[in-house]
Amino acid sequence: MKISIERATLLKAVGQAQSVVERRNTIPILANVLIEAEGNTVSFRATDLDIEVVDKANAQVERAGATTVSAVMLHEIVRKLPDGALVQLTSDAATGRLTVEAGRSTFSLATLPKEDFPVMASSEYTANFSAPAPVLRRLFDKSKFAISTEETRYYLNGVYMHVATAEDGQVLRCVATDGHRLARIDAPLPDGAQGMPGVIVPRKTVGELRKLLDDDDAQIAVSVSETKVRFATPAITLTSKVIDGTFPDYTRVIPVANSRRLEVDAAEFAKAVDRVATVSSERSRAVKLQLDEDRLILSVNAPDAGAAEEELAVAYGDDRLEIGFNAKYLLEIASQVDRENAVFLFNSSGDPTLMREGNDTSAVYVVMPMRV
Amino acid sequence: MKISIERATLLKAVGQAQSVVERRNTIPILANVLIEAEGNTVSFRATDLDIEVVDKANAQVERAGATTVSAVMLHEIVRKLPDGALVQLTSDAATGRLTVEAGRSTFSLATLPKEDFPVMASSEYTANFSAPAPVLRRLFDKSKFAISTEETRYYLNGVYMHVATAEDGQVLRCVATDGHRLARIDAPLPDGAQGMPGVIVPRKTVGELRKLLDDDDAQIAVSVSETKVRFATPAITLTSKVIDGTFPDYTRVIPVANSRRLEVDAAEFAKAVDRVATVSSERSRAVKLQLDEDRLILSVNAPDAGAAEEELAVAYGDDRLEIGFNAKYLLEIASQVDRENAVFLFNSSGDPTLMREGNDTSAVYVVMPMRV
Repeated sequence: MKISIERATLLKAVGQAQSVVERRNTIPILANVLIEAEGNTVSFRATDLDIEVVDKANAQVERAGATTVSAVMLHEIVRKLPDGALVQLTSDAATGRLTVEAGRSTFSLATLPKEDFPVMASSEYTANFSAPAPVLRRLFDKSKFAISTEETRYYLNGVYMHVATAEDGQVLRCVATDGHRLARIDAPLPDGAQGMPGVIVPRKTVGELRKLLDDDDAQIAVSVSETKVRFATPAITLTSKVIDGTFPDYTRVIPVANSRRLEVDAAEFAKAVDRVATVSSERSRAVKLQLDEDRLILSVNAPDAGAAEEELAVAYGDDRLEIGFNAKYLLEIASQVDRENAVFLFNSSGDPTLMREGNDTSAVYVVMPMRV
Repeated sequence: MKISIERATLLKAVGQAQSVVERRNTIPILANVLIEAEGNTVSFRATDLDIEVVDKANAQVERAGATTVSAVMLHEIVRKLPDGALVQLTSDAATGRLTVEAGRSTFSLATLPKEDFPVMASSEYTANFSAPAPVLRRLFDKSKFAISTEETRYYLNGVYMHVATAEDGQVLRCVATDGHRLARIDAPLPDGAQGMPGVIVPRKTVGELRKLLDDDDAQIAVSVSETKVRFATPAITLTSKVIDGTFPDYTRVIPVANSRRLEVDAAEFAKAVDRVATVSSERSRAVKLQLDEDRLILSVNAPDAGAAEEELAVAYGDDRLEIGFNAKYLLEIASQVDRENAVFLFNSSGDPTLMREGNDTSAVYVVMPMRV
């Protein structure tokens, strides 16, 4: 293999591949990126056996071929090369080395045989559809904070992407929960997604996927089967196993009859929660909300450290209510609100509370109260 | 005590005080800041028993008094208050609480008696002088990277500030070394510093001092005794114990007869060192320098990972030389060069190498070679 490629193109392609590579590997080849050159294209493939990313880039291929080399080291080298450099990659079968040349720098890197690289088996996908990047970005960005980190509840360690029926018909829905809070985000159902099986997209895949979604104009090709999910742009293909488990019936958790309605400026609310939470100890960051006619008092009482209280002018017309929440959960859901006021719907101080933006039911959050 | 103070003023004063406070304290009062209000001034005092910082600020004092409160918590609260807020601090002897009020926020913080706060004993200083902030900044910024972190060699855990005799007469000199590299930085001797005892300023003090030196126009009042050093601006006084030990005779380490002279663009040199070091393992980052007529070849050979080589055009007219260095040390001294080319003076591949900026002997670095 012998190719010439621009430093910026190479950096982007290797960067996306190497981020999938786990930093600690017991299997040496998993630390490597598989470089394959043919025609006028070079592809960079990396995997952790659960996720595989393939990044294609244009290059001048003098001699087709393939090899594997440390993904992190190649990325570091390319990152440190001067802007605008032309990089030559040459693999030498006799020495088993890959030579990286740019300007007056020459690197000779250890390789492993391309035959040892575990390429993910191709699958039959049940559903194939296309969605604009901003739509997928919203679905995952607004839900991922609620993903559970408890490994014993592995079926909650991802975002449940599925087809659901909302008020106005079928939607593409993402749900995540850790048992304390839940996010349910809907988008119009894309053509071709109707028969899609529900899949739990693992946390790491959600993080890698995010890098494909920055371009507002991009269309993402999505393919789903019972065991795998694939997201692709013309340059990058991200394939991931899905979590082999059953996502719990979340619909039972979402309150439908909560009638006490609080409307509050989300940014002001978040700042006030953050301030009063300062005095509480790290472990139990419980904030008490006292609601009265158009008035909200936020308070924290930490016997050792002190107490804090703040009053906010809000829209509230129901009965007096006292309810406690974990400050972190309140901050996280308040920070999801980006357009309108936050609307909280309460039942009693022991029941789950619902939050949404204005009257928009396409993004709904549920948070469990805490005794205060 | 009852005072009103602007949020920005309070934030700055508490910020400087709290940074001295150790995050883990077995003695509770050391986590607190002593707030003393009198006249139209409020002072914030914090200590770790080795360093004491006192920060004075203007405030409207309604009732003079003093109390102590958690430095970190007070700082966090003030940081989170809205810009431009007027903050009221009121201490109530009956409840033992300090009330912090701003806008619609109220905080009530636990206090400890001001009598328990360990105020550092005042000292007789042997020498008092004044130096412009940029002069002290240069002395400490260019030397501190070489401070040793080995606790067993406690006498190297700081910067040795003393009066020395250079080519053009007496200078104020800062020296730091960890046995592998050494920095020796000189400045014109300020009036009043002549009789100053040499002191080892501890690493943490150097860090705290740095915050007093950002203002180019500031004059810093420096006081030195055998056991303590004090740096003061009109608003802030930083007093520190010095390290109770003898700094080794560093002059023997500085080569005087090195004759092989290499001149190189420091930034280009640093980038090349950084690039070739990429292939080396973390532990022994040895870079080999091969010097020949106006040519420098940097190379690294890591048997497992690979090899790297880069050529630089340099000014060198002496005999061929091969010498190895720790890449980290080369990068650190190269990054001290800010005006001219880096000039290296070598003897043989086993001897210490000297580095300076152009012909300026007021900042000199020594680095020990490594066998490669």
